[in-house]
Amino acid sequence: MRPSQRSADALRAVKLTRHYTRHAEGSVLVEFGDTKVICTASVEESVPGFLKGRGQGWITAEYGMLPRSTGSRMRREAASGKQSGRTQEIQRLIGRSLRAVVDLARLGERQIVIDCDVIQADGGTRTASITGAFVALHDAISGLIAAGKLAESPIKDFVAAISVGVYEGVPVLDLDYPEDSACDTDMNVVMTGSGRFVEVQGTAEGEPFSRQEMNALLELAEKGIGELIAKQKEALGL
Amino acid sequence: MRPSQRSADALRAVKLTRHYTRHAEGSVLVEFGDTKVICTASVEESVPGFLKGRGQGWITAEYGMLPRSTGSRMRREAASGKQSGRTQEIQRLIGRSLRAVVDLARLGERQIVIDCDVIQADGGTRTASITGAFVALHDAISGLIAAGKLAESPIKDFVAAISVGVYEGVPVLDLDYPEDSACDTDMNVVMTGSGRFVEVQGTAEGEPFSRQEMNALLELAEKGIGELIAKQKEALGL
Amino acid sequence: MRPSQRSADALRAVKLTRHYTRHAEGSVLVEFGDTKVICTASVEESVPGFLKGRGQGWITAEYGMLPRSTGSRMRREAASGKQSGRTQEIQRLIGRSLRAVVDLARLGERQIVIDCDVIQADGGTRTASITGAFVALHDAISGLIAAGKLAESPIKDFVAAISVGVYEGVPVLDLDYPEDSACDTDMNVVMTGSGRFVEVQGTAEGEPFSRQEMNALLELAEKGIGELIAKQKEALGL
Amino acid sequence: MRPSQRSADALRAVKLTRHYTRHAEGSVLVEFGDTKVICTASVEESVPGFLKGRGQGWITAEYGMLPRSTGSRMRREAASGKQSGRTQEIQRLIGRSLRAVVDLARLGERQIVIDCDVIQADGGTRTASITGAFVALHDAISGLIAAGKLAESPIKDFVAAISVGVYEGVPVLDLDYPEDSACDTDMNVVMTGSGRFVEVQGTAEGEPFSRQEMNALLELAEKGIGELIAKQKEALGL
Amino acid sequence: MRPSQRSADALRAVKLTRHYTRHAEGSVLVEFGDTKVICTASVEESVPGFLKGRGQGWITAEYGMLPRSTGSRMRREAASGKQSGRTQEIQRLIGRSLRAVVDLARLGERQIVIDCDVIQADGGTRTASITGAFVALHDAISGLIAAGKLAESPIKDFVAAISVGVYEGVPVLDLDYPEDSACDTDMNVVMTGSGRFVEVQGTAEGEPFSRQEMNALLELAEKGIGELIAKQKEALGL
Amino acid sequence: MRPSQRSADALRAVKLTRHYTRHAEGSVLVEFGDTKVICTASVEESVPGFLKGRGQGWITAEYGMLPRSTGSRMRREAASGKQSGRTQEIQRLIGRSLRAVVDLARLGERQIVIDCDVIQADGGTRTASITGAFVALHDAISGLIAAGKLAESPIKDFVAAISVGVYEGVPVLDLDYPEDSACDTDMNVVMTGSGRFVEVQGTAEGEPFSRQEMNALLELAEKGIGELIAKQKEALGL
Repeated sequence: MRPSQRSADALRAVKLTRHYTRHAEGSVLVEFGDTKVICTASVEESVPGFLKGRGQGWITAEYGMLPRSTGSRMRREAASGKQSGRTQEIQRLIGRSLRAVVDLARLGERQIVIDCDVIQADGGTRTASITGAFVALHDAISGLIAAGKLAESPIKDFVAAISVGVYEGVPVLDLDYPEDSACDTDMNVVMTGSGRFVEVQGTAEGEPFSRQEMNALLELAEKGIGELIAKQKEALGL
Repeated sequence: MRPSQRSADALRAVKLTRHYTRHAEGSVLVEFGDTKVICTASVEESVPGFLKGRGQGWITAEYGMLPRSTGSRMRREAASGKQSGRTQEIQRLIGRSLRAVVDLARLGERQIVIDCDVIQADGGTRTASITGAFVALHDAISGLIAAGKLAESPIKDFVAAISVGVYEGVPVLDLDYPEDSACDTDMNVVMTGSGRFVEVQGTAEGEPFSRQEMNALLELAEKGIGELIAKQKEALGL
Repeated sequence: MRPSQRSADALRAVKLTRHYTRHAEGSVLVEFGDTKVICTASVEESVPGFLKGRGQGWITAEYGMLPRSTGSRMRREAASGKQSGRTQEIQRLIGRSLRAVVDLARLGERQIVIDCDVIQADGGTRTASITGAFVALHDAISGLIAAGKLAESPIKDFVAAISVGVYEGVPVLDLDYPEDSACDTDMNVVMTGSGRFVEVQGTAEGEPFSRQEMNALLELAEKGIGELIAKQKEALGL
Repeated sequence: MRPSQRSADALRAVKLTRHYTRHAEGSVLVEFGDTKVICTASVEESVPGFLKGRGQGWITAEYGMLPRSTGSRMRREAASGKQSGRTQEIQRLIGRSLRAVVDLARLGERQIVIDCDVIQADGGTRTASITGAFVALHDAISGLIAAGKLAESPIKDFVAAISVGVYEGVPVLDLDYPEDSACDTDMNVVMTGSGRFVEVQGTAEGEPFSRQEMNALLELAEKGIGELIAKQKEALGL
Repeated sequence: MRPSQRSADALRAVKLTRHYTRHAEGSVLVEFGDTKVICTASVEESVPGFLKGRGQGWITAEYGMLPRSTGSRMRREAASGKQSGRTQEIQRLIGRSLRAVVDLARLGERQIVIDCDVIQADGGTRTASITGAFVALHDAISGLIAAGKLAESPIKDFVAAISVGVYEGVPVLDLDYPEDSACDTDMNVVMTGSGRFVEVQGTAEGEPFSRQEMNALLELAEKGIGELIAKQKEALGL
Repeated sequence: MRPSQRSADALRAVKLTRHYTRHAEGSVLVEFGDTKVICTASVEESVPGFLKGRGQGWITAEYGMLPRSTGSRMRREAASGKQSGRTQEIQRLIGRSLRAVVDLARLGERQIVIDCDVIQADGGTRTASITGAFVALHDAISGLIAAGKLAESPIKDFVAAISVGVYEGVPVLDLDYPEDSACDTDMNVVMTGSGRFVEVQGTAEGEPFSRQEMNALLELAEKGIGELIAKQKEALGL
């Protein structure tokens, strides 16, 4: 039995609130149960140095947690003077996931910067971030189209992410914090609307996992991501 | 006429939402119009090194802005590797303001860390932070009393803060961003419930100000802070 | 009775030595009693990036203390790898204070960098720095005029600064270190030659202060600054 | 046809040279074709702070590349003052992979620090690092047993790693740099001697990949890792 | 008697292996006994900012030690976030030594970056670095000539370096680690093929040394450097 | 002819002003002509971690230049966040030079921190620093004896430093900035009162130097240091 009483293949309550803050071109509050992340998309009419003059755009992401988004207070990264390895891993993952579904050449020489800031954490902050960030990105691109800066959308597909893991011997979907901190295997899966994989990151800090377990986990993830993409479409009115 | 159509002595709509996030001992969303700040108070059962064994507590504060809380995206301080001078000034101000109304000896050898994170900015983030942080601190201390860790409250008085300034020649209360970026004089005032000053920080980047202007600004501030403290009491049910 | 035996409204001995070091365009040793600060003004024929091509100049300031300018040795900021929040607050204050009395458009596209380095500290280092830096700035600008680079002075007014505070219940002028470390309220006031305020920064780490105390402190400050500006004029032979 | 003329399921020439440098308790030069990494294992008779007094050991890893291990010179991380996100990801991966096959309780309160330094890079540096580091770790632990500090080995299984990817539409094993920089999908797989997964990290910067492709890649990886573990056993004389 | 049984004026076995790694324009493994350093020379077709447009080239050097190149593990400088004073001293010394024998004007507007990375240390890493780096530099420049980018070599003379010291009262050549850590005086000498000095750095952490000792040390150094330059010529086939 | 009209073997005017600032246990302003350095010695009743419990003391040094001590303003190291390689070289040299003449065991478990801050530079700042720092150290140690904390002085000998160089083909003593920036060879020599060498650092960025030139330079240095030590004795009233 899961601590949250959910069935093994049940997501937590997922909520996507668009236009959550007012300045960003896209701004979404994403909630996976008690995990809450503000995802904004900021359009900048220039690209990083390594892309100058190459006629294509870029999407990058940054991630942070408010110091008391967690059960005990974490050190503020701005105060400690550097981002942890975990933070860097997550923000690189978010960026890659979004770039995988956007035709950067058709985006034009502009950059969209995604910021994912966790205001309350209960496991799954990176997967919630990707899922919410896609909606913020979609809004920012719709804004570019509405303003006549883009003729058509460079978005090729939807993308969402979910965690799966083996908790007390049972493969389960969408781990919350009590599960995440106790499970043997934790896998984050990023998939497109057409059911293809963008990222699969499975880790066993405890017992290594078998091929059968992996298959079971991937199936749970496919199911969950289908539901998340339905939520994204609903939020976007598509 | 003010851009927001407010009268010269009118605050923006002020809202204090307690228990805004679930992990912190005190957690308040404070809104001064479109300025929105999450203020949390975290209790730690130890004190910084310089206070070890001296039988008193400590209150300190950290401040941050989400990169896209503002009209154009700011660089993330965790990514740039240091907090700006402005950030440090503000967090030192918040800490001093709260310490001024707490009897640190009666707090016992524990530290309360305040985090003020701006999720949407429209001027006055430091004054909203102080006003909201006091409520979060009050909740954290009530929790210590409820848990039997403190016999009585070490809080000596209420404290709140407001900005005042000379905008197009007229002294006005509670500057929003359009006023703040255009005014000659900007003054942040921190006062207690009993009407005494904790901090007065007046700055003229434009035209220096006269003693009469200063007096007019201080009177506006007194009025505004009276209203803010009434809001704090209402939020706390006192 | 003050530790130094001064009357409540008496400054310490103030001395301004021009041409103190030989390389800088302006170089002043300022002494407020035992507080000694070297203030230099360096002219650079370029402006920071954010002002390029806008036809105006800039004045900025940096501040430091020699590690053993104080009673016990402080850590060298260059060795610890960052400037403290206090250092940043002070150097921002010095810069703002000087910019308030200079017409930056008439300065032309050049920058004047002020360096204030405390070689001996006994309280009031920031107010001594501002007072001495104005004289160094004046010399640097006179040099630009003498060299034919400026037709007329962009300096609009004099500026000086002094600390005031409530020490053992009595408002006093120009706090030295023993007073500064024991007083309830400490206020730094920056004023122009025409008697207008550029900055007022009053802080109560101890007991909050009343409006009457504030008024008394401002009056002391006005008197002290009048005397400081007379000293500046005398030093400059004006 | 692969640039190296290898068949799709062929590893590059793999070589493990033990006792490569003389100071470390374990020191291995691992070569996957032209990729060459020095892996050392250093035994320290203490554990990191978070493990003090908990009666268990720790294994951690650091990773670096010589600036000119690559085709064009990379900036030296020691000179730029920080490790890149990629470096941190890799060293966290190496550490997790080794910890997965060691019983940390039976290691005792000591730490083994793995250093993987790439002296020549041609793709697959992280998988070569893990494969070589296991051998260095094994030597270090054998040394502890020989010295009577450990009664029996805390190593539970072998571990090795390999990259697989979809290159020009074909799943291939052990990507070299020309393949790595051109492939659509890149997957790093870490497996134990008993054929279970420790890590699976699949990434599509180009075209997302299907479940069938994933299965094909995992099968290639299983084959490759079997061969690598045979090489490790041979090198260790087991 | 020296710990290594060498006579006072004997070098350790010196070996220079060219083309040690495959990417760099010059790549040499230099061995002074158990001290092993990889020296690479990387040609960059641009110069640092301070030399732009001045029609001359530049040679600079960086130095590092693998964390476990030494008897006990050193902290990785990339992880600690800065290079030690010792590292900076050594890399500045290597750069100056090489620049002293190259006509930078004839090198053209390009930079050659030398990287010296110690993979095993047993004393004398800086002198081995200079000696090996010269050979790597020579190869890089020969490559520029072969590619038609330079008409003739800008190298004016050979350069090599050796340490000498007073060990147990006796002047000795080429100190290894046991001697280096126990000697009173340690001197590093850099000389050209024509027998002139580029650098002499003598240090007494123990007993200060006399003029006679200095003379004896310089004579040993001259002898040793003559032998090293013969080795360089042999390695280069000159 | 030297730019300053001095004869080849003439020092600049040397002045040592004791008790220059009031807080430090030793405080000396040293002037070598227009080069002016404040040298303070601070006594701390503890030693660095690596010496804890070993019954001996330590002497260490830090060095800095005021940003406008030089002809054009240098970047403030505290603002740029790190000390340059040159700064670190110099402060390590000062520390070694002083430790060479002090019996650290007889100093007891305390540390003396030397700070050398250049307020005006005209060449030779490191040699002036060493020469002045010795006097500050002597005063600090006399204070320890006077306070009964030391029974007898751990100072074994005097120490001073001077630069010599080959300027326009002629060996000269005590280079000022115009000479220093134009000379071929620059050598810094640190010697004791008994005429033994503590450090010899000769560098040829221009033309390498011969053994004869080296001998001539060492003789000049011996003469100069004899005169400097006489000045130190005179300043100390010995």
